Amino acid sequence: MIYPDSLNKSIEYLKKFQGIGDKSAERMALSMLDMPIEDVENLSKYLLDARKSLGKCNRCNSLTDNEICNICKLSDDGLRDVNTICVLEDYKSVFAFEKSGKYNGTYHVLGGLISPVDGVGPDDINISSLIKRVDSLSNPEIIIALRPSLEGETTTLYIKKIFENKNVSISRLSYGIPMGVELDYLDELTLINALNDRKKIS
Amino acid sequence: MIYPDSLNKSIEYLKKFQGIGDKSAERMALSMLDMPIEDVENLSKYLLDARKSLGKCNRCNSLTDNEICNICKLSDDGLRDVNTICVLEDYKSVFAFEKSGKYNGTYHVLGGLISPVDGVGPDDINISSLIKRVDSLSNPEIIIALRPSLEGETTTLYIKKIFENKNVSISRLSYGIPMGVELDYLDELTLINALNDRKKIS
Repeated sequence: MIYPDSLNKSIEYLKKFQGIGDKSAERMALSMLDMPIEDVENLSKYLLDARKSLGKCNRCNSLTDNEICNICKLSDDGLRDVNTICVLEDYKSVFAFEKSGKYNGTYHVLGGLISPVDGVGPDDINISSLIKRVDSLSNPEIIIALRPSLEGETTTLYIKKIFENKNVSISRLSYGIPMGVELDYLDELTLINALNDRKKIS
Repeated sequence: MIYPDSLNKSIEYLKKFQGIGDKSAERMALSMLDMPIEDVENLSKYLLDARKSLGKCNRCNSLTDNEICNICKLSDDGLRDVNTICVLEDYKSVFAFEKSGKYNGTYHVLGGLISPVDGVGPDDINISSLIKRVDSLSNPEIIIALRPSLEGETTTLYIKKIFENKNVSISRLSYGIPMGVELDYLDELTLINALNDRKKIS
């Protein structure tokens, strides 16, 4: 009732974005009125384009506009290490790794974790496609980067078991202390993990 | 480079909203991928609709989808007090008043404040249309609700002068202490204003 109808509708749908509440949606909708109309046209177009065109990479299941994602394409061109595959739960983790700018291999997105409690088995996530990829490589290395939880551990162990008698180097990310924290604020499990994964000072 | 092209474009344009930075735009764009496609279609449609259809009320200059805003229409139907006009700097203030739900008059949006330094004179803001409106009323009351600044004061005094010899009741909002603050955190000017505008306890 307070806002004109078309503004109310905009606010209603802006709130569907994650992390956008009443206040933010109102401020966004009002600020849109000061934008050049071409910007709103482009915004409107690109949002819909993205939602429609984005799908999964046929090889690694990461997010892409095309059949094969940019990273897999770069590995085909020899610009990324095709033999190193980082195994992740979801495509958001791919972007987190890419932001670091320090990883030069490829990815494999599982699209979930094995969780017997929730009825999610190995066949429900992208493990068979991982096996196929690894089998096709000459000198494969797998880096498992799943979250440290019961499901993460289960999935890590399952993947390790599959490849343990094949000629595949398998590692997982180290557990430990994140940067910039006070030790006394850390939870016990993180401390114990950091202790167990301790590294010799050479 | 990190995100697929269509997602990068979405992020670029989401950042044009006021208050949306890099991180928020990324989170919004990624969360859009989990929305039903109809929601994104509607969002896209309503944003553009709102930007295109919203304009100024022919009477009070507030924001509306139509020729005359909802509030002026209600006053025509006798559902709001047509004789009371609250004078505001911009349409955002209209929504702030409407949210309170306690004001039953109409509004007049000036679209700016008199500011000789910036070369903004009385003819550059919607004062002549205010005079015309007030002259047409039988028992007009004007409530000036401008921000307490040099420009706000100048504009308030100018409007007061125009109507002082006509049969118009003119007031401004009281200055004072906002709710829920500690007095010792208030700036001096607010305290002095609260002192000057003090109200007798009867």
